[in-house]
Amino acid sequence: MTEQKLSDTSAAPGVRPIGTPAPSGPHGSAGPVAPGPGAVAALRPLGVGQARLDADGLLGRWRRRNAEDTLPHCVDNLHRAGNIGNLRAAAGESDEAFAGMWFADSDVHKTLEAAAWELSVSSGDGALRSFVEDTAALLARAQQADGYLNSYFTVAAPDERWRRPDWSHELYCAGHLIQAAVAAARTGVGPELVAVARRFADLLVERFGPDGVEEVCGHPEIETALAELYRLTGHRPYLDLARRFLDLRGRGLLGPGRFGPAYYQDHMPVREAREVTGHAVRQLYLLAGMVDVAVETGEPQLLEAAERLWEDAVHRRTYVTGAHGSRHRDEAYGDPYELPPDRAYAETCAAIASVHLNWRLLLATGRARYADEMERALYNGVAAAVSSDGRHFFYSNPLQVRTGHTGSGEEAAGRRLPWYSCACCPPNIARLMASLHGYLATAHDDGLQIHLYASGSVSAEVAGAAVRVDVRTEYPWQGRVELTVASGPGVPWTLALRVPAWCDAYTVRIDGGPVMAPARDGYIRLTRVWAPGTTVVLDLEMPVRQVSAHPRVDAVRGCVALARGPLVYCLEQADLPPGTVLEDVRLDPAAEVTAAGREDLPGSPVVLTARGSLADAGDSLYTAGIRRERGGAPLTFTAVPYFLWGNRSEGPMRVWIPVAATG
Amino acid sequence: MTEQKLSDTSAAPGVRPIGTPAPSGPHGSAGPVAPGPGAVAALRPLGVGQARLDADGLLGRWRRRNAEDTLPHCVDNLHRAGNIGNLRAAAGESDEAFAGMWFADSDVHKTLEAAAWELSVSSGDGALRSFVEDTAALLARAQQADGYLNSYFTVAAPDERWRRPDWSHELYCAGHLIQAAVAAARTGVGPELVAVARRFADLLVERFGPDGVEEVCGHPEIETALAELYRLTGHRPYLDLARRFLDLRGRGLLGPGRFGPAYYQDHMPVREAREVTGHAVRQLYLLAGMVDVAVETGEPQLLEAAERLWEDAVHRRTYVTGAHGSRHRDEAYGDPYELPPDRAYAETCAAIASVHLNWRLLLATGRARYADEMERALYNGVAAAVSSDGRHFFYSNPLQVRTGHTGSGEEAAGRRLPWYSCACCPPNIARLMASLHGYLATAHDDGLQIHLYASGSVSAEVAGAAVRVDVRTEYPWQGRVELTVASGPGVPWTLALRVPAWCDAYTVRIDGGPVMAPARDGYIRLTRVWAPGTTVVLDLEMPVRQVSAHPRVDAVRGCVALARGPLVYCLEQADLPPGTVLEDVRLDPAAEVTAAGREDLPGSPVVLTARGSLADAGDSLYTAGIRRERGGAPLTFTAVPYFLWGNRSEGPMRVWIPVAATG
Repeated sequence: MTEQKLSDTSAAPGVRPIGTPAPSGPHGSAGPVAPGPGAVAALRPLGVGQARLDADGLLGRWRRRNAEDTLPHCVDNLHRAGNIGNLRAAAGESDEAFAGMWFADSDVHKTLEAAAWELSVSSGDGALRSFVEDTAALLARAQQADGYLNSYFTVAAPDERWRRPDWSHELYCAGHLIQAAVAAARTGVGPELVAVARRFADLLVERFGPDGVEEVCGHPEIETALAELYRLTGHRPYLDLARRFLDLRGRGLLGPGRFGPAYYQDHMPVREAREVTGHAVRQLYLLAGMVDVAVETGEPQLLEAAERLWEDAVHRRTYVTGAHGSRHRDEAYGDPYELPPDRAYAETCAAIASVHLNWRLLLATGRARYADEMERALYNGVAAAVSSDGRHFFYSNPLQVRTGHTGSGEEAAGRRLPWYSCACCPPNIARLMASLHGYLATAHDDGLQIHLYASGSVSAEVAGAAVRVDVRTEYPWQGRVELTVASGPGVPWTLALRVPAWCDAYTVRIDGGPVMAPARDGYIRLTRVWAPGTTVVLDLEMPVRQVSAHPRVDAVRGCVALARGPLVYCLEQADLPPGTVLEDVRLDPAAEVTAAGREDLPGSPVVLTARGSLADAGDSLYTAGIRRERGGAPLTFTAVPYFLWGNRSEGPMRVWIPVAATG
Repeated sequence: MTEQKLSDTSAAPGVRPIGTPAPSGPHGSAGPVAPGPGAVAALRPLGVGQARLDADGLLGRWRRRNAEDTLPHCVDNLHRAGNIGNLRAAAGESDEAFAGMWFADSDVHKTLEAAAWELSVSSGDGALRSFVEDTAALLARAQQADGYLNSYFTVAAPDERWRRPDWSHELYCAGHLIQAAVAAARTGVGPELVAVARRFADLLVERFGPDGVEEVCGHPEIETALAELYRLTGHRPYLDLARRFLDLRGRGLLGPGRFGPAYYQDHMPVREAREVTGHAVRQLYLLAGMVDVAVETGEPQLLEAAERLWEDAVHRRTYVTGAHGSRHRDEAYGDPYELPPDRAYAETCAAIASVHLNWRLLLATGRARYADEMERALYNGVAAAVSSDGRHFFYSNPLQVRTGHTGSGEEAAGRRLPWYSCACCPPNIARLMASLHGYLATAHDDGLQIHLYASGSVSAEVAGAAVRVDVRTEYPWQGRVELTVASGPGVPWTLALRVPAWCDAYTVRIDGGPVMAPARDGYIRLTRVWAPGTTVVLDLEMPVRQVSAHPRVDAVRGCVALARGPLVYCLEQADLPPGTVLEDVRLDPAAEVTAAGREDLPGSPVVLTARGSLADAGDSLYTAGIRRERGGAPLTFTAVPYFLWGNRSEGPMRVWIPVAATG
């Protein structure tokens, strides 16, 4: 989850911004009395109510769709699939059999968290508010006397409680409960959840703390959740337990399991790891916890380890869509440069986790590369997972679906499904989309930093005064961003604007006049006394790019991906003439690719038009000699944003387009 | 398993060659009394004792290694892993807990079958004979009163007997028991096994026959086994039951299972299927059963369906090594042209199954393409699965292992393991290697057909007389094959010699004189009255080939595989200068690739030497623009036969070599 609400001290007493000293007294004590050993965050998230998305921009429309469609759909499905029934049974109010996965509670917690974020920015309809209140009360009733709360191990397998840390997801579910409670506390919705979460967290401290058992959970999540609960409450044992779980990891406590200890990152201590391994979501959640603990404890080694692992992931094992996870079998990272577009697992939850991780790293370090990666994952890997109607979802997000594709069951990935037997992804999408506004900007003592461009407004306290900047843009369709300083202090402060890594050229005008504004470390920094009403127009050139992969990425050799701005594009069967086999399309590398709006497609996207040809494929699977494809029939074809694929018809798709041989 | 012993009427009364009328009387009746409705086989397998491999050729050495190392190793491991103990427990002679997979009995049956074939060609050491006799007796004691025989469902889960056809492998295990019994009967080793197998088969007829339940097994194997038992015994209900299992398949009787009905080919009737699907071994075993039943019942639709599915498999979903199965997750075929070399599952058992299937199709149709495919699978996909020492095995046979490869547990495929928790492959290798001589040649009324070239001799009855041809060759290292007709009838008969599909040019000399011998349909047919002592020298040109894949095979675009004769070659880290990253090696497509023997490598293989360069890889995973690799440092490198990889050190390997950009 995100820290973007951390500085909302009004919503929950004791909440403090990341990077400020930790209160060492008990919960609710009168403010900080001694600084922590050195919290290290570079940037502060905005608080609840400090960022807003207009309804007409792309991110604003995603947020609204999430509120109007995805969230009600999730709530419906939690009832239908039995997740709510499980909690009723745990509360002794029903004798229905347990339904679904043993970690089904986490779907409830994630939906609660999403609802809390949503209710903090919209008036909220009564149904959503009732869901939060009813479910919070139900959770309180389902909680055991000692604080334990997990419907599966209460109803279906009481003898197994705490007995299978490799498999049980008990701490994972506890973590999502805590995240929901933190969100509820920060947004003032369902605050009774904090009491429930703290009762459970106190049990965890008792059982797993310094005097308790040495165990870790097979699925990380508790680490970041406990760090967040510490931020909310100032109660140090939560942070210490988060750190203890990190310290205990990599000692083989989980055993080999089915896929070996690297599957759940238990093969070596987290500070020593040099490569991301195993289940991608687990790895990324673990990294988020590492950053959280590093920031709060001020331990540079832990942050260095997280940044080093980020580099391994992003430089050798990340898809051009920002997706993570190359293998279906164990939902895992592959070898370096093993990035098959067709069998990409690219789990939705991993892309979401990447947004969470990159946001944390951005806050901790202020480095633009994390904002770049967050943007790439958001607009491609995450956005593609949800349908235009907000009610269908991909679990796996391949970059290629072949003609004649067959999958197996829910992992077929040829079309989005309304729900899953393992429904981790839909409510995870909901909680990210409900909090999108939180990722737009950050604050610092010297000013405001804008990382994502979207119509809306962002505000923060700078130099003791309220700064507000209103943003108008058609980003990501156009690179022009108009910012108006609505208010600010009467002293100089810095408005920092990110220049995305994909952007080679841009201009800046202030009140219509061009200014020289060289970017440094990925940001243009404009420092002045800003008179209210001053406008800044940032115009990011947004040409179509033909993107190539590293030559060690065997799976896409001889191909390019088309991209424009932060968006990766793809070819879909729906845009090809009837009878055309998508696999035979070749791009003419010399021909210009043009961009234009398409009003007849949902969301009126900018699409690309390219020239190429149809390869003459022949019949033999293998032939002697170096096969030279003969130039086939010329073809003009359309590429659509990857995140929109599969919304018109089920059919072949590909991101990487083979380039026709030249000469 | 194979039919190559079918015509050995001396070893087991009632055995008859494929394609001859079926005896309709009871087992042991005095020969055929009425022809079947039209058995359709084109070629006859040789009988036991009619083919022999010299010890110094490659196939002969494989067979000997199998006898001296692999078979004793299998027997040891059956004891060590608990398979034998399971049968003791089923016989009431031990109270040990069941060990291993629930289909662990099949490993015993396969090893028994291998031992039977081995004992038919070698004097056999006492230990192997004792193993067969002791195990056959143990199986008889473990058999239940009603004929049922399966240690898991006797010892560990008696209540589950016959209750989970999708999962249980009960008929699969029964099939392997029957195959072992058929081999034992044909070779005269452990003939009491036939009684055991028939008791079980009779129970199957009672339970699953026309008056019984309508069920099929999740893992095909019983179909081909029952057809074989019918061939051995002439007992028609066995064949009818085999056919019934085929008829019942594709009606959804197995339910969706975890991976959907296509996983076990239960999604559509076998005669209507147009594509191979799902678990590759199951698909190939099913196809073998289809051919067997088609041949015995004379049903052309069934054979046509099998040939059609073969075309789909071989033209769109087979690796250049002859391996099948593109996906790890469900050990399954992929989409058309989905043939990743790195994540190739390429299960050893699937390559073995391909040999079995192609042999059946060759017998049924006489078409050379099946011999070609059998040869490719044998020399590459199968042969690579076993180490030079005969005691280590691959389960999965990738065509690429990257620098920094990590796998997960037994499917890591970076090195051969001595045994597996699911040990289906090692004893499957053993039964194929023990019967290799059976695949060399076939007979027909007009003569003898030689399909695989290996030093040894083959004989058959042709025109009422014993024909024997002795073969001397260094194939596959050299293309020269010297054949001597040792005996034959005094009338004209045809010696047919296969010209492999990879061979573009050859010469034929008879007693030193060149003859014009155009190949027709893949065979040179030499018809004459052959005087004993006549020599034929077939010289197949064996240049190095650069093999290209179909342009729809995205995973190897811009690459070639090096091949010579039937062998596919690969690059191994062990042959590169220290510090060289295998992924950066590029082949100069214009440079000549030379072949030469290497005495310092095990088996003195012919290796290839090629020229190329090291690509300058750079750092960025993705870059804008079409990346042109700059010509790097020149490099001369060695390629070794794929089947020998991983015998010197564990390290990166690749079959498909990127071709350096020209011009």
